[in-house]
Amino acid sequence: MDDIRIKKLTDKDYHADILIEGLPGVGQVGKLVAEHMIEELGAEKIAEITSIFFPPQVLIDETGVARLSCNEIYVVSKDDLSIAFLVGDVQSGSPEGHYLLADAYLDVAEELGVKRIYTLGGYGTGHLQDEIQVLGAVNNSDLRETAETAGVIFSHDEPGGGIIGASGLLLSLGAERGIEGMCLMGETSGYIVDPKSAHAVLGILNVLTGLDIDDTKLEERAVEMEGIVEKIRELENAKADEELSYIG
Amino acid sequence: MDDIRIKKLTDKDYHADILIEGLPGVGQVGKLVAEHMIEELGAEKIAEITSIFFPPQVLIDETGVARLSCNEIYVVSKDDLSIAFLVGDVQSGSPEGHYLLADAYLDVAEELGVKRIYTLGGYGTGHLQDEIQVLGAVNNSDLRETAETAGVIFSHDEPGGGIIGASGLLLSLGAERGIEGMCLMGETSGYIVDPKSAHAVLGILNVLTGLDIDDTKLEERAVEMEGIVEKIRELENAKADEELSYIG
Amino acid sequence: MDDIRIKKLTDKDYHADILIEGLPGVGQVGKLVAEHMIEELGAEKIAEITSIFFPPQVLIDETGVARLSCNEIYVVSKDDLSIAFLVGDVQSGSPEGHYLLADAYLDVAEELGVKRIYTLGGYGTGHLQDEIQVLGAVNNSDLRETAETAGVIFSHDEPGGGIIGASGLLLSLGAERGIEGMCLMGETSGYIVDPKSAHAVLGILNVLTGLDIDDTKLEERAVEMEGIVEKIRELENAKADEELSYIG
Amino acid sequence: MDDIRIKKLTDKDYHADILIEGLPGVGQVGKLVAEHMIEELGAEKIAEITSIFFPPQVLIDETGVARLSCNEIYVVSKDDLSIAFLVGDVQSGSPEGHYLLADAYLDVAEELGVKRIYTLGGYGTGHLQDEIQVLGAVNNSDLRETAETAGVIFSHDEPGGGIIGASGLLLSLGAERGIEGMCLMGETSGYIVDPKSAHAVLGILNVLTGLDIDDTKLEERAVEMEGIVEKIRELENAKADEELSYIG
Repeated sequence: MDDIRIKKLTDKDYHADILIEGLPGVGQVGKLVAEHMIEELGAEKIAEITSIFFPPQVLIDETGVARLSCNEIYVVSKDDLSIAFLVGDVQSGSPEGHYLLADAYLDVAEELGVKRIYTLGGYGTGHLQDEIQVLGAVNNSDLRETAETAGVIFSHDEPGGGIIGASGLLLSLGAERGIEGMCLMGETSGYIVDPKSAHAVLGILNVLTGLDIDDTKLEERAVEMEGIVEKIRELENAKADEELSYIG
Repeated sequence: MDDIRIKKLTDKDYHADILIEGLPGVGQVGKLVAEHMIEELGAEKIAEITSIFFPPQVLIDETGVARLSCNEIYVVSKDDLSIAFLVGDVQSGSPEGHYLLADAYLDVAEELGVKRIYTLGGYGTGHLQDEIQVLGAVNNSDLRETAETAGVIFSHDEPGGGIIGASGLLLSLGAERGIEGMCLMGETSGYIVDPKSAHAVLGILNVLTGLDIDDTKLEERAVEMEGIVEKIRELENAKADEELSYIG
Repeated sequence: MDDIRIKKLTDKDYHADILIEGLPGVGQVGKLVAEHMIEELGAEKIAEITSIFFPPQVLIDETGVARLSCNEIYVVSKDDLSIAFLVGDVQSGSPEGHYLLADAYLDVAEELGVKRIYTLGGYGTGHLQDEIQVLGAVNNSDLRETAETAGVIFSHDEPGGGIIGASGLLLSLGAERGIEGMCLMGETSGYIVDPKSAHAVLGILNVLTGLDIDDTKLEERAVEMEGIVEKIRELENAKADEELSYIG
Repeated sequence: MDDIRIKKLTDKDYHADILIEGLPGVGQVGKLVAEHMIEELGAEKIAEITSIFFPPQVLIDETGVARLSCNEIYVVSKDDLSIAFLVGDVQSGSPEGHYLLADAYLDVAEELGVKRIYTLGGYGTGHLQDEIQVLGAVNNSDLRETAETAGVIFSHDEPGGGIIGASGLLLSLGAERGIEGMCLMGETSGYIVDPKSAHAVLGILNVLTGLDIDDTKLEERAVEMEGIVEKIRELENAKADEELSYIG
């Protein structure tokens, strides 16, 4: 059993100019944005990545079928731009796994001919806020002006702790392979799944890529997601009440 | 020293149509069911599995003899059905170990010619309950109807966190090898060893396999086990009192 | 750099009938006994074992010279019995390391021709006690009578959690190589370095090996060790007072 | 991807008589001293070391460019002495990594022809103090007199817990390669970045190496660093106040 397994779902050759990474992270901001784009653009899943560095856990889909925790590669073309996405369930549970997985993701990117990577994430501020800035980092100083023109904020002090996981490693390990990289971090409290922050990041990404992706559904999905969370809480409360009635 | 060692206890060739996994887990539900079946059917132990991924600990049997923490394979035939069991002391202590061990268990299953795996476990609800449902997951949508007909519940929302460890990985890694798999999870509080939940799981398994295994002893053993727990508590209290008398 | 390095300090060939293991553990009981025996018998150090599985730490001797955390093999002959000792600073920090190190220790034992291993340790009871029993475990049921005749107690219920680390693994992995093994565990509170428990274990070992090792120095050394602990506490208190005087 | 990657920034051959290690640690004492020396002497960076054993994190420089957490080798010659420095962002997160990285650092040292290593660190005392002693350890008893003559204190009892990480391992693993080594530990409270302790260590190092490095800037940089810490605290307080004003 290989430590990292990349299962191609098709024999066709694909090309992608850019890779957009939206793996799980603070506020699920990157995940929300990338999955929204995949749905809006109708991107096609071409590969699944599983690894012994992922949590030893299977997920159950709504029909009751179990599947390994996995990450996925999607591709789509719109106008003149071909785009790959890296999304999925998990990140590594160990430092070693983080590095080796980022390296494997870059193998995929290189094979697709990717020239630029956008890594998406949330930047936890610890408090709710009305206006959401999108902070940035690049792997090449030439990119900074491009980013700032699109509205990305570069702050002297933030993120002070650097960028942890795939969003950071793809940038720096990508630079070693000559792939440009930019990380977009939407400010978020860090306490909840944050579609509002995702909305801000998508806005910047629309400018940077020239894509004009509608965000109506992103907001709807966000509302829906909050609805689900609410429903779970209600169920839990109902169960708790039930239990109390046994006792009382 | 190999990372995972499978020690065959016999040179004979064995065959098994199905594999039933009952390794330690929530409420020891799977363990209770599988060990009960082994005893009732008089299954034969054919292999022992040890691993550097297991806790570095030996167990002492009642005669004072130490043995490595290990998992075991049993086989038995009844009527037209040949059955293998995977039971034992431990699961892996690391994510990597979980994946590699599940892979090794499947090597054994494949060698035995296993066509379907039942993985057994408990589903922690956090509260005591009168009626115990058996929740299910499958690795192949065709199996769901079979399961539901036998009384397995498929819930949209549960288990929300997926299935951790061997019970989940055997399903999904098994599917890659063309082995059907179904996980049966008896609801349990999660606080105690739960023979009542085991009883419910065994009932479903009797229907699914056509085996008609008596569960009188399972309940007896459960009562006995609770007696042991009680005795240990008494001993601890007695010791505590003794200590107090030194002080007082 | 090898994961485990065994550095032989001499080219001579050595033989040992028995191996006595006294690595760090509960109450440092095994360590106290084995180091006492080494000193009393004037055993010779023949090998040092270092490993990347040990804590990444060097120890400073009283002359200020740093040395790697390491374990050591000593040998000595007395009357007709040749004895090897496994003592040292550390045990592994990971499950994998525990198994691989035990395997390496057994390579050494086999090379020396060891036929029986005594592993020594403390059995934490959580309370101080006047009479100290020595509990036992064996890797071969034939050994139990020998042990009981020497005064070792075999308890149905204890040690309930099994034996963790080298003391347990040497028994069970040793059995696979045809080496007899017995673990002697002196009852100890588990809170302090416990020479009283070591004294009890040494008594049993004297009977089992036919060695007649004086234990006067073991008690002296124990008293000395408690003196050192006391001195450290006084120094700490003195420093704390000094600090207070800055503030006050 | 190699577990440890040493990227040489130049094809030139370099030589160094001594290596000075100042990786992150207690009070950042070693880091402060080594980085100060690099700046004062105008040392040249010749290699970067990255590793899967480092935290999976990129750091963002003040221009917004991300780079991998990495350690660095600098070289410089002054008078008749050629000096290499090992400085950087991180140490290993696992025991195994610590050993393997120290081994890799020593490969670099050996290639440079290093004959003596000075490892620098802080010795946490847990309290603020007026006079700062520099404690020492050596990997060769011949070195002790040299060290004491320069003002290094060798204490019977300290450091009781040994030396953790690169500062310790470079000494002991270096000794195996015939490289002399001395660890200099400035007393420090352990609570803050401590330029005062760094100043004391630099003083000793000036004596030991015959270098006469000015320490004005070290103090200035220390004051500056404390200023930054203060500024961050103020910003945090300001943000907290702002948040309160939303609520109030």
